[in-house]
Amino acid sequence: MSPEEKIKELGIELPVTPKPLGSYIPCTRTGNLLFLSGILPFRDGLITRTGRVGENITLNEARDDARTAAINALSVLKAYAGSLDKLTRCIKITGYVASSPGFTEQPKVLNAASDLLFEIFGEAGRHVRAAVGVNVLPLNASVEIEFIFEVSEE
Amino acid sequence: MSPEEKIKELGIELPVTPKPLGSYIPCTRTGNLLFLSGILPFRDGLITRTGRVGENITLNEARDDARTAAINALSVLKAYAGSLDKLTRCIKITGYVASSPGFTEQPKVLNAASDLLFEIFGEAGRHVRAAVGVNVLPLNASVEIEFIFEVSEE
Amino acid sequence: MSPEEKIKELGIELPVTPKPLGSYIPCTRTGNLLFLSGILPFRDGLITRTGRVGENITLNEARDDARTAAINALSVLKAYAGSLDKLTRCIKITGYVASSPGFTEQPKVLNAASDLLFEIFGEAGRHVRAAVGVNVLPLNASVEIEFIFEVSEE
Repeated sequence: MSPEEKIKELGIELPVTPKPLGSYIPCTRTGNLLFLSGILPFRDGLITRTGRVGENITLNEARDDARTAAINALSVLKAYAGSLDKLTRCIKITGYVASSPGFTEQPKVLNAASDLLFEIFGEAGRHVRAAVGVNVLPLNASVEIEFIFEVSEE
Repeated sequence: MSPEEKIKELGIELPVTPKPLGSYIPCTRTGNLLFLSGILPFRDGLITRTGRVGENITLNEARDDARTAAINALSVLKAYAGSLDKLTRCIKITGYVASSPGFTEQPKVLNAASDLLFEIFGEAGRHVRAAVGVNVLPLNASVEIEFIFEVSEE
Repeated sequence: MSPEEKIKELGIELPVTPKPLGSYIPCTRTGNLLFLSGILPFRDGLITRTGRVGENITLNEARDDARTAAINALSVLKAYAGSLDKLTRCIKITGYVASSPGFTEQPKVLNAASDLLFEIFGEAGRHVRAAVGVNVLPLNASVEIEFIFEVSEE
């Protein structure tokens, strides 16, 4: 099944690409690499929730936010490449999790994004990853994720 | 107007490239990508100010620091490439802002760097960006910014 | 002396590659770039120590952790490329240091990793670097480091 077919099977509707929060763009291409901006869990134009994981945000809520950020990334990628089927590989994701000082399960948060990429792209969705905790993120979001993908030549 | 002409028009004097704070170098090239080290707001060899935005540093001061870091990056790029006119594209910047837990306007801080790149390079200055808050930076600086540029082949 | 010979001379035994903590892989290749996941200071399958530098972890302990993370990275690189002698260049490392708000010597922590790379790879080990403080890391580790290397074409 192609990524586009898989997205349909999963019942995922790609949202309108979220607007950048400043003087930058959502995606740049160099060679056959696509770099995406840090993506926040926007849904219907609003940040899903605010605060820090381990404080007022639960692990499951943060996982939901990581998945939402990944879906937003797919929306950016589709807008840029025309079709998710043009993407040959997810190279890397970097996830920043707004964390209370005692929360150390950032990898479990990010797994929700990583697992979705694997579901959609299969082996081509397997990527390297860095997951770190930070004390605060833009708009007080719980999660911010960067992505690097590889796109087919043509 | 070329980037070099634009720099002159803006009255920006590129400083001497700041010395690395450790066992690393300011710039590496792979293919036609230039990766820069994380750059702090040094001016005349000193860090501009110390502390955290939202605590003892204002948004405007942090914006000034982001612009200073970007100017330092241009100095590194020029030293490496010979001329800013050799740069074909800014691919990505990653900005870390030392933030009080209640400060969530990291994008506004980074806009000062992004806007400068757009002023100087025009469309080629438009990049993707990640902006995150952190609790502390080297030398207690307010801002640290990484850059990836593309350079012409030759 | 080649990197493999140098490793032997230094008496460094490359450990078994640490298992990823989630749904990701240790290394991806795109073109002749190798991206590594964020690497923690595991030794014999356990995280070396937990906490924050400037609080319950000393600078020297954190330096030891940074070196351990770098050795783990070499193990990943060797498993992936077959031999460290295939690596033509270290392009970049990004180091996250779990820091008390008053600890600002992240560069000194990361130097332990950077110096090791220079010892092993010589000039080809010189890289760009970003070092930032964060309030907490996965598993409450003191240090997490990402690496980008260049590998020979063949």
